[in-house]
Amino acid sequence: MPRAVLHVCTTCRRGDPVEDAPRPGALLLAALQAEGLPEGVELRGVECLSACSNGCAVALSAAGKWSYVYGNLDPVLHAPAILEGAAAYAQAADGLVPWRQRPEIFRKQSLARIPPQE
Amino acid sequence: MPRAVLHVCTTCRRGDPVEDAPRPGALLLAALQAEGLPEGVELRGVECLSACSNGCAVALSAAGKWSYVYGNLDPVLHAPAILEGAAAYAQAADGLVPWRQRPEIFRKQSLARIPPQE
Repeated sequence: MPRAVLHVCTTCRRGDPVEDAPRPGALLLAALQAEGLPEGVELRGVECLSACSNGCAVALSAAGKWSYVYGNLDPVLHAPAILEGAAAYAQAADGLVPWRQRPEIFRKQSLARIPPQE
Repeated sequence: MPRAVLHVCTTCRRGDPVEDAPRPGALLLAALQAEGLPEGVELRGVECLSACSNGCAVALSAAGKWSYVYGNLDPVLHAPAILEGAAAYAQAADGLVPWRQRPEIFRKQSLARIPPQE
């Protein structure tokens, strides 16, 4: 099965007005790296997922699968659940994980999904 | 260049509580079909883009390009601008259309973008 890519917006501010502090998006990327990645999941930082009103934001995509974007994420608290959801996504042939097997943040904080490319 | 696919959520309610009326998402799909499609753009209806709080919603994607999702669209007024933006997207090798060449709704109503799949 193709690897699932978990993109993390590193420039998300999450409403944080402090210029000199690390961006919440960068903190989320670091928190995910620290957790250790599930099998079949690759982690990539990206500058801006254009979800600026709903940061922190992440995207899951893989060849032949639906893509998903989630937002309003906490850069520390939500890292374990994001990886749990990414692991289930990586195992799902079309990317469609049964509803009850999705972590709560994936059920409630979807910003969008996009059908697979052909 | 690969064809760009413009997915339109046909189940978007856009806050409309009327059960028996056609869904605003279905009206948007019909409005886009009536306009006539630009070269290199394919139109597809899809049941739910998981952007339910920000409907009407559309997604643009193509092999090797960034994908985009736009929301809070008007099912009638915005159809011409959506197609204008889709035409520019179809012509852009990586899907990244220069900022000033994007219609205003694409500049201001992005829900998310996702990097290209490899």
